[in-house]
Amino acid sequence: MIDAISFQNGTLRYLDQRFLPLKENYVATKSHIEAIEAIKTLAVRGAPLIGVAAGYTVILGINAFQGSKEEFPAYFEQLITDVEASRPTAVNLFFATARLMEVYNANYAEDSLESLVAKMLAAAVKIHDDEIDNCDRMARFGVDQIRKDLASTLKKRKLTVLTHCNTGTLATGGSGTALGVIKLAWQEGLIEKVITAESRPLLQGLRLTAWELEQENIPFYSISDSSSAFLMQKGMIDFGIVGADRIAANGDTANKIGTYAHAVSADRHGIPFYIAAPVSTIDITIDNGTQIPIEERNADELRTIFGTQVATPTTPVINYAFDVTPSELLRGIITDKKAVIGNYVEELRKIV
Amino acid sequence: MIDAISFQNGTLRYLDQRFLPLKENYVATKSHIEAIEAIKTLAVRGAPLIGVAAGYTVILGINAFQGSKEEFPAYFEQLITDVEASRPTAVNLFFATARLMEVYNANYAEDSLESLVAKMLAAAVKIHDDEIDNCDRMARFGVDQIRKDLASTLKKRKLTVLTHCNTGTLATGGSGTALGVIKLAWQEGLIEKVITAESRPLLQGLRLTAWELEQENIPFYSISDSSSAFLMQKGMIDFGIVGADRIAANGDTANKIGTYAHAVSADRHGIPFYIAAPVSTIDITIDNGTQIPIEERNADELRTIFGTQVATPTTPVINYAFDVTPSELLRGIITDKKAVIGNYVEELRKIV
Repeated sequence: MIDAISFQNGTLRYLDQRFLPLKENYVATKSHIEAIEAIKTLAVRGAPLIGVAAGYTVILGINAFQGSKEEFPAYFEQLITDVEASRPTAVNLFFATARLMEVYNANYAEDSLESLVAKMLAAAVKIHDDEIDNCDRMARFGVDQIRKDLASTLKKRKLTVLTHCNTGTLATGGSGTALGVIKLAWQEGLIEKVITAESRPLLQGLRLTAWELEQENIPFYSISDSSSAFLMQKGMIDFGIVGADRIAANGDTANKIGTYAHAVSADRHGIPFYIAAPVSTIDITIDNGTQIPIEERNADELRTIFGTQVATPTTPVINYAFDVTPSELLRGIITDKKAVIGNYVEELRKIV
Repeated sequence: MIDAISFQNGTLRYLDQRFLPLKENYVATKSHIEAIEAIKTLAVRGAPLIGVAAGYTVILGINAFQGSKEEFPAYFEQLITDVEASRPTAVNLFFATARLMEVYNANYAEDSLESLVAKMLAAAVKIHDDEIDNCDRMARFGVDQIRKDLASTLKKRKLTVLTHCNTGTLATGGSGTALGVIKLAWQEGLIEKVITAESRPLLQGLRLTAWELEQENIPFYSISDSSSAFLMQKGMIDFGIVGADRIAANGDTANKIGTYAHAVSADRHGIPFYIAAPVSTIDITIDNGTQIPIEERNADELRTIFGTQVATPTTPVINYAFDVTPSELLRGIITDKKAVIGNYVEELRKIV
């Protein structure tokens, strides 16, 4: 498996994703300052992976502490503040710091500093382990569902699957969400090849997913995002599966811009289209997709590519980072608790 | 109007499109060798514009001739061969050379060399003038149709239109096909703004259409191709109009990859979607879209952008240059003879 992030003997090791796929730059550090910088500069990215990195970063910071137990609380508080400031909109980062603060609050009074630090390290490792387990369960539920839904095709041949953006090890620290399902389906002999949409503007599909698939020796082709509809028309895609940024109570799903276009085309061609995302992505306080706020990002994401100017600096741009796919276009939502097929309002509420 | 190409006092002047929108590099030349090179290197591109350029290039070649009338035929034959070799798959180029050969064959025996050359110059100018007229007629038919189809919206507000790739002056030498319609609609006060899809892989929308709209002071926004579906969902697009590479007898239309995805989304949202293309684009020997051969282009178009490597050189790619939109998804086909609305088999046959 790809080593997107690991922690051993007090050293954090991560893959600097900014230079992928052209350079595989692994970094090892004992410095929480460097680790914070890695999160800030997107060297480490992908919502769940940021959470894992944040947990380990707090541990690096604690390891650097040289004062007494009495001096620890002030230091720890500042450390948490610094880590949280590295990517202030990443919810998984705050899940991670909250988890470590819980352990701290529960044990500071009773424990020695040494014992407290050991418990916090265990908690950070568990954040990572949980991500790995979540991915594995999602993969299992996803593959079982695909076996069922595409049984008649599978009797004749292996499948070609469309995916979008990056939802693999580079995003999660585990096998991935949608890409985790694809990897397990490949291991079990269900997949002939993967079609990875490049995912403009930031090209996570062309750069990161392609790189992961190459590492895993899974056959794939990269395409421009707008080619997917034509490939479906030509019968070249059997199903689609993507991740999620946020899922509303009724199953409407916000995900990387381009997802909705793929789903609309899949619907027209009768091709099953799945979301794979952990239960933590579901927000049942949001009734439906129209209520999910959609971030508009900097115009330069479209106007420059890898630092190369492709449009004039004044070209006006509409750059939504995500779009919303209504649940009526989905065959199902694969979570780490079960595969939810229709009846979303009731079923999603149950598993949250 | 933008001066994509012009011919005056024996000098060809053209805009080198390779550096747009970052550099506006106008080139003036009396050399047919240089003009051939401009076609070959895509400094001049766009099917109809290549035809116009080819006509003028032949004239440059003739102007360079210094021999006797008897020596002319051999020289002319070689010249035509050289011009045709500059872009051997561009049908408009061959339309242009065929037209000039016709004039030559009809007049060589009777005319003085001077008179023959004058007639050929007139024919080259007419190729250009015809393109301008075709665009103007298409624009008129298109705007009239849009006024009719979108009458109820136009009573309340101006329109937002989606387009794809480049179909303007830079492609035609006239006002454009789809973009010609948009420009006239803007002049007549129907348009609030244009949404130009970037058109991966070669970004003609982001680079060329954006540049043209800026020159014409028409408000616009560039988007990633896969954003169009989401913008339609949000009610931000009133109609779509694009060009055509080739139209089958039943109205099925091959056009720049991404067109079909836009059309499928437009259909889902009940948004009228038009093709604008001259009658010369219609090939009634082809029954329907499945019979149109679709060119697959070099994988490096996706793997590199403006010379910058974005994927590894070995990343496998599927890169169809065009896709096919079935005519059932079209509101109409705007030609230079009329706006054809439905009943394509019969109506297209009539106007060809």
